[in-house]
Amino acid sequence: MVRATRPGGRSAKVGASVQAAALAELVASGYHGLTLDAVAHRAGVHKTTVYRRWGTREALLHDAMRARAQAAVPIPDTGSLRDDLLALARAAIANLATPEVQAVVRTVAALAPHDATVAAASRAFWAERLAVDGEVVERAVARGEIAAVEPREVIEAVLGPPYFRVLVTGEPVTDEFLSATTDRVVAGLRGAERG
Amino acid sequence: MVRATRPGGRSAKVGASVQAAALAELVASGYHGLTLDAVAHRAGVHKTTVYRRWGTREALLHDAMRARAQAAVPIPDTGSLRDDLLALARAAIANLATPEVQAVVRTVAALAPHDATVAAASRAFWAERLAVDGEVVERAVARGEIAAVEPREVIEAVLGPPYFRVLVTGEPVTDEFLSATTDRVVAGLRGAERG
Repeated sequence: MVRATRPGGRSAKVGASVQAAALAELVASGYHGLTLDAVAHRAGVHKTTVYRRWGTREALLHDAMRARAQAAVPIPDTGSLRDDLLALARAAIANLATPEVQAVVRTVAALAPHDATVAAASRAFWAERLAVDGEVVERAVARGEIAAVEPREVIEAVLGPPYFRVLVTGEPVTDEFLSATTDRVVAGLRGAERG
Repeated sequence: MVRATRPGGRSAKVGASVQAAALAELVASGYHGLTLDAVAHRAGVHKTTVYRRWGTREALLHDAMRARAQAAVPIPDTGSLRDDLLALARAAIANLATPEVQAVVRTVAALAPHDATVAAASRAFWAERLAVDGEVVERAVARGEIAAVEPREVIEAVLGPPYFRVLVTGEPVTDEFLSATTDRVVAGLRGAERG
């Protein structure tokens, strides 16, 4: 739905500033206060540009989150599943710690059962994102480091516990916790082969 | 803070009906609409009873969640860590699927960064709850099934991924997913010893 853009072109620059403005508006005004008009104003672009290119608040936030994740959580390729997963987890949790991503994730957690459009946009974002993250698992399987496994479940095993701390228990997510979680996930994938 | 009660006594019956009414009011009115007066009315008790015994909305919800978890998520003792963890995960996720627990958890996820009282009540609930759940891990260590480990991190490894699905990705939590997650966690604890 989003028009193809040349990186660095005028359209890409407008896209990036509108995406950033959408996340900033969510933090400032909350989901129910977020309007495309306010986003256009904050980004300094004409509102018809925003309406034509994104159409809805959900499509715009989805696009903003996808761009943000691509920039903030690059897919590592260190040659070691453990190191790749730990790098991914560190970047994902650092991204989650920002006010913008925190606002999106907490908004979805609160609204998803009551708002089918929000729920669908979030499911689509995560289906794509976990598939992209899962590349590190596919590469580990391809090079014989672990047996075949559902890639997204490995990513969920690494990201689930720190997300549980941030959203539910309120316990701090330390680097030790991320390392220990990652180590246990990798040991589980190896242990399952030998067990 | 909550007065000791004899099980089955009049005070315990009042406690149970006020706890149930608090969760029902949260579902019906949301956190900002929840008042102790409305809870008392729904439970059919005098409002001074509720004010005297619980004092605040957060203390009442904390108490209601503790009672609910005790009743809905019993601590299993099957003699097998894998079976204990899977029984715990099944009960915890069934409990999370109810409208009442869902409302509490999503409210906390949305409000914790903006409301220190909500955040503190939730942290206290989970610190206690994860310690109680951790008994199954302590017993497995005591009988030599696994090496010493931080019990709460094992519970977080089992509950984190399904909570991540419910609150974040929207993917359904199937029994196969709970089993596979539990199996990988237990394989990780055993693999770590051998690795």
